Amino acid sequence: MAHISTCPPLVRGSVIQAHTLIRPYIHRTPVLTSRTLDQLASTPQELPLLTNPQRASPVIRLFFKCENQQVIGAFKARGAFHAIERLKQEPGWQENGGKENGVVAFSAGNHAQAIAIAGRDNGMPVHIVMPNTSRASKVASTKSYGANVVLSGPTDREVIANQIAAETGARVIPPYDHPDVILGQGTVGLELQEQVEDLDAIISPCSGGGLLSGVAISCEGTGVKVFGAEPELDGADDGRRGFLSGKCVTHVKTSTIADGLIGVVGYYPWSVIYERGLVSGMFAVPEENIRDAMRLLVERMKIWVEPSAAVPLAVALYNEEFRKMVQEEAGVKGWSICIVLSGGNIDIGSFSKVFH
Amino acid sequence: MAHISTCPPLVRGSVIQAHTLIRPYIHRTPVLTSRTLDQLASTPQELPLLTNPQRASPVIRLFFKCENQQVIGAFKARGAFHAIERLKQEPGWQENGGKENGVVAFSAGNHAQAIAIAGRDNGMPVHIVMPNTSRASKVASTKSYGANVVLSGPTDREVIANQIAAETGARVIPPYDHPDVILGQGTVGLELQEQVEDLDAIISPCSGGGLLSGVAISCEGTGVKVFGAEPELDGADDGRRGFLSGKCVTHVKTSTIADGLIGVVGYYPWSVIYERGLVSGMFAVPEENIRDAMRLLVERMKIWVEPSAAVPLAVALYNEEFRKMVQEEAGVKGWSICIVLSGGNIDIGSFSKVFH
Repeated sequence: MAHISTCPPLVRGSVIQAHTLIRPYIHRTPVLTSRTLDQLASTPQELPLLTNPQRASPVIRLFFKCENQQVIGAFKARGAFHAIERLKQEPGWQENGGKENGVVAFSAGNHAQAIAIAGRDNGMPVHIVMPNTSRASKVASTKSYGANVVLSGPTDREVIANQIAAETGARVIPPYDHPDVILGQGTVGLELQEQVEDLDAIISPCSGGGLLSGVAISCEGTGVKVFGAEPELDGADDGRRGFLSGKCVTHVKTSTIADGLIGVVGYYPWSVIYERGLVSGMFAVPEENIRDAMRLLVERMKIWVEPSAAVPLAVALYNEEFRKMVQEEAGVKGWSICIVLSGGNIDIGSFSKVFH
Repeated sequence: MAHISTCPPLVRGSVIQAHTLIRPYIHRTPVLTSRTLDQLASTPQELPLLTNPQRASPVIRLFFKCENQQVIGAFKARGAFHAIERLKQEPGWQENGGKENGVVAFSAGNHAQAIAIAGRDNGMPVHIVMPNTSRASKVASTKSYGANVVLSGPTDREVIANQIAAETGARVIPPYDHPDVILGQGTVGLELQEQVEDLDAIISPCSGGGLLSGVAISCEGTGVKVFGAEPELDGADDGRRGFLSGKCVTHVKTSTIADGLIGVVGYYPWSVIYERGLVSGMFAVPEENIRDAMRLLVERMKIWVEPSAAVPLAVALYNEEFRKMVQEEAGVKGWSICIVLSGGNIDIGSFSKVFH
């Protein structure tokens, strides 16, 4: 990772610079729409018998940013390529053998593959520390990009990554808690501002908060509101709870199907999301809503997404608090809301289990 | 259906006219590419031990026409809207109460939904005869478009459709064996000629042959070769067998997972595919290949398709006869081949069963 002291500030201009750096490596993913889902989003939810007769009736136009079609099948490629481009720019990095020493990352998921491919494309060695509980297919996929995969226990992966860094001189690239990673993920928001006319809001999933905070930075001063979406099972809504209490939650253990969203919000993301107030609200949804949203994305829109990617749509369709807010703030004109479909990396077996 | 005697000839110019008629109602579906799948298609298949050491080594660039993103989720919308537009143009149709009498179709699948929505959008009554073995979700979906659904036994649906026509004055729109339907489906081929530069070939699934023959007509005189793809289980490759023997096969009973491809080639499609020689070859694949191709489309390309839509890719990736032919005809330059992803109408439960 580039030294913190050399990182660009977390402002919109830095996201624009990041976009210039990574554009040769990433896809400008398409934005899809669906009349069926617009209609559904703009229809009050069905009434449970005798309870809560006042259902929200917002007007919502949905836009789906297909990061499931991104390089490696998830937005993480953006942060990974940016982190490595920034390393390459660091004074002395090349001269001191930076390229030969390579990079090291710890991740069980999309960040692993993103760093593996970004390192490979830049001709440098890549070490990936993955927990020994990782799916064999993910390990195989990471290895297939030429990375040196090191298995760890469930909790010591960061320690092992730091050991490898100390021994080899490889630079650690953390999954979300670093300005370079955040600025890379924020390019999603920039593209949306170009791709969707009169965009009112973006809903992004929130785990460690790299994507959410990056998108929020990209929207600062544009008038586009940014919201975070989380699962609520077992307190997985750490971002939302921290947002409401003013205190960042530092530990969560959850078995949500949205397995990409089990992390807790990191230091830099928190500073953007909460302290600087660049995120307008955090919303959480139960498992059933995530499953229903995922079913609609797959069966109606014919697109393959992992459960985490369905969480923002679940908020737009089913979270009454969010929907009441849209109704009140947007009125009859309604809002054009972009849903970030963060990734599509799920194998058929795991997918089937989600609906079993 | 418009009277046969009033139908335009089955030539490329008629497909162009059809496209003009239906363009306001249908999507110009996107064409996707995948470097991973190009690489796979251009790599010889793995060798089974000790057998057939000479594996084909073609150079293939793949283009995927996403008719799974078409209105109603399948290409059938094209033929349906064209059939109804042609009816509207028929002299005397409007004056004789044609619109009030509406249309009737028999189908368990995508044709049912296509006619239901095309009829509804034109403000006319629609009767759909569906076998009583149809999935409840398909019946519900067809009803949701406002169609009058009549259930039939497994074999008498055409008889019942004709009865309804006689009683109500509704005009029957058959699923594939009619020039207007064929010309509508052929617009897929026209769009491909515009969307893919230096296109060499198109592989289309073949059931009744409406799509395959329409695409073949759209390519006549352009130099683009057209091939048909079928499952081979239980002799489901009726088109291929007829093509080789010169005799159209008129009956097939198969339990292939590609349940959209169990029909036999119709009279008009046969005349185009075989008698006029507009299709260059027919290829069939076993179930395992269909499943593997479907898995690649879903997991790698992140797109949701029904099994029938995966059959052309299975031919390109796994059919040695096809691959040898490409190697010989295309040489090192290779071919740009379009795969028609015919539809994406499968619910999650049925999808999971395919891979169980």
